[in-house]
Amino acid sequence: MDATPLAVLDLVGVAVFAATGALAASRRQLDPVGFAFLAALTGVGGGTVRDLLLGRTVFWIAQPTPVALCIAVAAAVFFTAHLVESRYRLLLWADAVGIAGYCVLGAARALEAAASPLAAILLGMVTATFGGILRDVLAGEPSVLMRKEIYVTATLAGAGLFVGLVEFGVPFWPAALAGAAACFLVRAGALHFGWTLPTYRSRPGRPV
Amino acid sequence: MDATPLAVLDLVGVAVFAATGALAASRRQLDPVGFAFLAALTGVGGGTVRDLLLGRTVFWIAQPTPVALCIAVAAAVFFTAHLVESRYRLLLWADAVGIAGYCVLGAARALEAAASPLAAILLGMVTATFGGILRDVLAGEPSVLMRKEIYVTATLAGAGLFVGLVEFGVPFWPAALAGAAACFLVRAGALHFGWTLPTYRSRPGRPV
Amino acid sequence: MDATPLAVLDLVGVAVFAATGALAASRRQLDPVGFAFLAALTGVGGGTVRDLLLGRTVFWIAQPTPVALCIAVAAAVFFTAHLVESRYRLLLWADAVGIAGYCVLGAARALEAAASPLAAILLGMVTATFGGILRDVLAGEPSVLMRKEIYVTATLAGAGLFVGLVEFGVPFWPAALAGAAACFLVRAGALHFGWTLPTYRSRPGRPV
Repeated sequence: MDATPLAVLDLVGVAVFAATGALAASRRQLDPVGFAFLAALTGVGGGTVRDLLLGRTVFWIAQPTPVALCIAVAAAVFFTAHLVESRYRLLLWADAVGIAGYCVLGAARALEAAASPLAAILLGMVTATFGGILRDVLAGEPSVLMRKEIYVTATLAGAGLFVGLVEFGVPFWPAALAGAAACFLVRAGALHFGWTLPTYRSRPGRPV
Repeated sequence: MDATPLAVLDLVGVAVFAATGALAASRRQLDPVGFAFLAALTGVGGGTVRDLLLGRTVFWIAQPTPVALCIAVAAAVFFTAHLVESRYRLLLWADAVGIAGYCVLGAARALEAAASPLAAILLGMVTATFGGILRDVLAGEPSVLMRKEIYVTATLAGAGLFVGLVEFGVPFWPAALAGAAACFLVRAGALHFGWTLPTYRSRPGRPV
Repeated sequence: MDATPLAVLDLVGVAVFAATGALAASRRQLDPVGFAFLAALTGVGGGTVRDLLLGRTVFWIAQPTPVALCIAVAAAVFFTAHLVESRYRLLLWADAVGIAGYCVLGAARALEAAASPLAAILLGMVTATFGGILRDVLAGEPSVLMRKEIYVTATLAGAGLFVGLVEFGVPFWPAALAGAAACFLVRAGALHFGWTLPTYRSRPGRPV
């Protein structure tokens, strides 16, 4: 497993999540520094938690690229977000791309660090969702985890398929592409068709 | 201090907090994957923060048991929660068992890592409360810390008694049992009798 | 760069942020243990995140002083807060002192740990703001980051000026004083005059 393509994927995930952070900032009408800060926290948040949990050096400390990328993305969003018809819809689709990349990447880093397959899947899910959780908590929006349509399940599909394929001996890149595609397609179906899983319902007459 | 019984206690705490996470998921009518994810984050959350603060390897990375346990608990709650008269009341009592175990366990791990007694007590309190804080933030419920009846005080009683006894030379298990019992009894009294401490009140006529 | 004055500054930042946590506790009418716990989490929160991100030993684990200081501050606030005309205003000014110290301190620790200048600036900003974020999330108050008047920008000014001066060869203390003064003055202007930066505004007729 070569580290360099993973590092490039990291940057793609950072940029996409930074864009969702900047879009959240635009919805809260923050100033440019607020844009950059929320973009940076959202962009590096998931990967930071992953690195902390795995005992790795946090990926953006020693090199300036990830943070600089977040600032550039925040600036671009600050000046172009008004061109978009629905910024929240764009945020959700960008988030879908981000979780697809990060659920695989988080699981891959965990396997590298000799995590158990189950822990690798959970770590992929945490890496994929934590940036968005941080964004929603800081921006005071309802957590994306609580939305009715499928979200966490998409990261489970992606991380689970990737880890399963790697465990069965499939090489890294086909497994990674299959996992990311599975995550994105499940989430895209949820966004476009409103896919849901059966949810828990208390029986009638019972207090919730 | 033998590590194995501590590891078993860890699993009990994980299971009980996972149950509170799943109960919170049932109140938000999440789907099964949402159940499992919220159960897992709540179940391993407190111990994860403890391990990060102490510079230990995070306990659920290398072995699959804690995460698998959370998933099993989430599945059990998904299919049985409707049998319970008041799920929130059950959540609060399960939480009481969880904080009793974790306030001692967090303090014990901290003493193992040569933390100062005061830091060990705070770490026990953080370990006990952080899973619930994470659950409440993610589920969008008011934080359990802000409730009027005694909560944090129970974890202080448990962690403080345990650390105090250990400092005075009492062996590990009697000290641990006394600490956990103290925490549970204080919290049970708060839940059953509505125990409170005198709270801060601004003087009349003063703006809050 | 001598570690001892930095450690003293750490304690000043801890005390000031602990006071803001205790003031938030007074606004939520918590009991004395809730005061101490919220004061301790707010007081050590920013520095804890900084130490975790840098892979350093968390500063309050091995020595009892920071936690003891938080408890003392919480007790003092519990018995004197009613003397203050507006506790929220005092909280904001104490917070301004705290971020001024911590934005420099976080950046200094990061440079010590060979972080890139850009990462050091971001780390200074994270160290300065994270205690307040934790306080606001736990106390259920709207995040201070979302306020209209300048806040994050002040920490950027402080951390940026400090890192810039150090990079240009200015000795530590003049650079640190200049950075802390810049942060405090910018934030004080925002508090006193309501300074804001131009914020993002969607074009008229566009949905937000």
